[in-house]
Amino acid sequence: MKIGDKHYRSIWVGDDGHSVHIFDQTQFPHSLEIMTLKTMTDAAVAIREMKVRGAPLIGAVGAFGLALALREEPSDRTLSSSFETLLDTRPTAVNLQYCLEAVYDAVKPVEETARAAVAYQRAQALCNEDAELCESIGRHGLSLFKKIASKKRNGEPLRVLTHCNAGWLATVDWGTALAPIYMAYDEGIPIHVWVDETRPRNQGAHLTAWELGQHGVPHSVVVDNAGGHLMQHGLVDVVIVGSDRTTAHGDVCNKIGTYLKALAARDNDIPFYVALPYTTIDWRIEDGLREIPIEERSADEVHLLKGVTRQGDSKMIRITPPESSAVNHGFDVTPARLVTGLITERGVCEASREGLRSLYPEQGKSGPGMVTG
Amino acid sequence: MKIGDKHYRSIWVGDDGHSVHIFDQTQFPHSLEIMTLKTMTDAAVAIREMKVRGAPLIGAVGAFGLALALREEPSDRTLSSSFETLLDTRPTAVNLQYCLEAVYDAVKPVEETARAAVAYQRAQALCNEDAELCESIGRHGLSLFKKIASKKRNGEPLRVLTHCNAGWLATVDWGTALAPIYMAYDEGIPIHVWVDETRPRNQGAHLTAWELGQHGVPHSVVVDNAGGHLMQHGLVDVVIVGSDRTTAHGDVCNKIGTYLKALAARDNDIPFYVALPYTTIDWRIEDGLREIPIEERSADEVHLLKGVTRQGDSKMIRITPPESSAVNHGFDVTPARLVTGLITERGVCEASREGLRSLYPEQGKSGPGMVTG
Repeated sequence: MKIGDKHYRSIWVGDDGHSVHIFDQTQFPHSLEIMTLKTMTDAAVAIREMKVRGAPLIGAVGAFGLALALREEPSDRTLSSSFETLLDTRPTAVNLQYCLEAVYDAVKPVEETARAAVAYQRAQALCNEDAELCESIGRHGLSLFKKIASKKRNGEPLRVLTHCNAGWLATVDWGTALAPIYMAYDEGIPIHVWVDETRPRNQGAHLTAWELGQHGVPHSVVVDNAGGHLMQHGLVDVVIVGSDRTTAHGDVCNKIGTYLKALAARDNDIPFYVALPYTTIDWRIEDGLREIPIEERSADEVHLLKGVTRQGDSKMIRITPPESSAVNHGFDVTPARLVTGLITERGVCEASREGLRSLYPEQGKSGPGMVTG
Repeated sequence: MKIGDKHYRSIWVGDDGHSVHIFDQTQFPHSLEIMTLKTMTDAAVAIREMKVRGAPLIGAVGAFGLALALREEPSDRTLSSSFETLLDTRPTAVNLQYCLEAVYDAVKPVEETARAAVAYQRAQALCNEDAELCESIGRHGLSLFKKIASKKRNGEPLRVLTHCNAGWLATVDWGTALAPIYMAYDEGIPIHVWVDETRPRNQGAHLTAWELGQHGVPHSVVVDNAGGHLMQHGLVDVVIVGSDRTTAHGDVCNKIGTYLKALAARDNDIPFYVALPYTTIDWRIEDGLREIPIEERSADEVHLLKGVTRQGDSKMIRITPPESSAVNHGFDVTPARLVTGLITERGVCEASREGLRSLYPEQGKSGPGMVTG
């Protein structure tokens, strides 16, 4: 997508052919800083410290992390240890495991001297594929949006609420939940986006608002508390979010707070869609609530907030009393029963085992499958 | 309640017999500043700028605001214009109107020379009454908490989630939702409170966490997004919140985001109680969603956050992109169907017309009533 007039992806290989460039997403929206990853450790740290985030982008950085490791030392031992190190960086999103396995499977049978080159190729292919998946998701979501928009009275914008950031910064390009929003805007459909700020890390206020602004899409930031009220008063036509892990049964694990918006959408008869590439589907898991590990992150993410002062200085402030503790779970699970539909690269389906099987008939009863798809 | 070892109310008349002291609640939790209100305008500004907030405390400050006005100029004209000015400061809570009417009705028939004294007496009586109401609410809530706690396994704390601040800083003393929490703690019942930070103004992180900490009550601050996840995982035994306006039908208007927690409580079979003195009941209103005016406040409350740096400097930072707009509704309405029970000074009742009538049989079919109760 574009920043100003220039097209960017969220990750790309530098001119030297091996360094990997990303945006330091902890600096948005007040500063746009490109970081260079030169080693596997750089990649692992970038994921762990959330310089990059978003399930698909984490997967892409993990894949390139393996390539960076193999460039230094192409042994089986490095391959295995790097795989483990990268897999350990974040527990909830499943794309990371899929992308690491894809690179692992591609390089394992290959002679050591060729492994780095194969790993880079595979990582780049995964990136290209992710961009294509998101574009397809965007097209299917756009059809849905057009249907909903067709019921609006003359000139009234389609009002979409989204939580966290499932935009191009969370993927390689386009985004998942934001892809149909960009396409609708590009087609001239009047649209307005309610952007949940998404505490504690404010990916909505920091990233989604910035992305939409760069593209010119009308939007307003609201606090995470606001969505229910907006829905009660007819100010939301559709909710769309991404997914960090989707179970074979259609449960969706996404940024903490997603479940509350799904409840409000159901209570107000508003469609609640989840946009996801197949790479977030974990076919081995049925019950999202019991089986998906929910990352517990530092309490400081609740206590401390970063922003800029009126003078333009970047500052970190504490909002809680010094004696108070905080607890910080990163994700929650929205049960399939609250999801109107899943928007994947293959189309829209019911959030259920049957729905997912109708789009992915090749899936067996067990095994992660499709990893190298 | 106590700050350190000293007992305070949230509002009191100074040694000079007419100045009114409050805490500047915009400075919590990092600084404890006592403000002095010397004129009606001081009182109006304190309410409007949220130096004081919380439906019962707003009412008390409004009452003293009229007294301050009459001390300067006891004419009918001043009485009327001050009444209007103070009523205009905040639209959602109904206590303000009730307290203003109570003082108005007390002073109107009185000779001008006696009006100020009568107004101070009436305002002080309203404060004393509010403290008593909250103490009664606390006792009724405590009985409920004891029942719920009796089902906990040995030594496990009763886990209570609350939203915003309905503590002693929101009232004159004790608080509404926090009163039973203080009493349970004082009786030695193991208790742990999940404190919603309550964006955008962070009354949970700033005020509730501070209050509980001063009293020694174990608590953890969580982001507003977290409650659903906590409830899904059995980490919440009961939700209790306050109310800024309660309809005759049992709908509850409270801080934005309350409705989302009520939905999550219902979805997880967790009791959701609302603690309120009769002064928040608006007997003239049935349908909270259609009839209660919801205050829309400055977008800057979403864009900007105040806190202290590691060096202890108070700073205001912006978290959103400079081009992004924001929308900021202060309250939402939780329909009676989602409320397990209302805890009032007279006991606990169903959130319904019948439930409220059972506690307040003297209420007629119309008229605000009970203003001067």
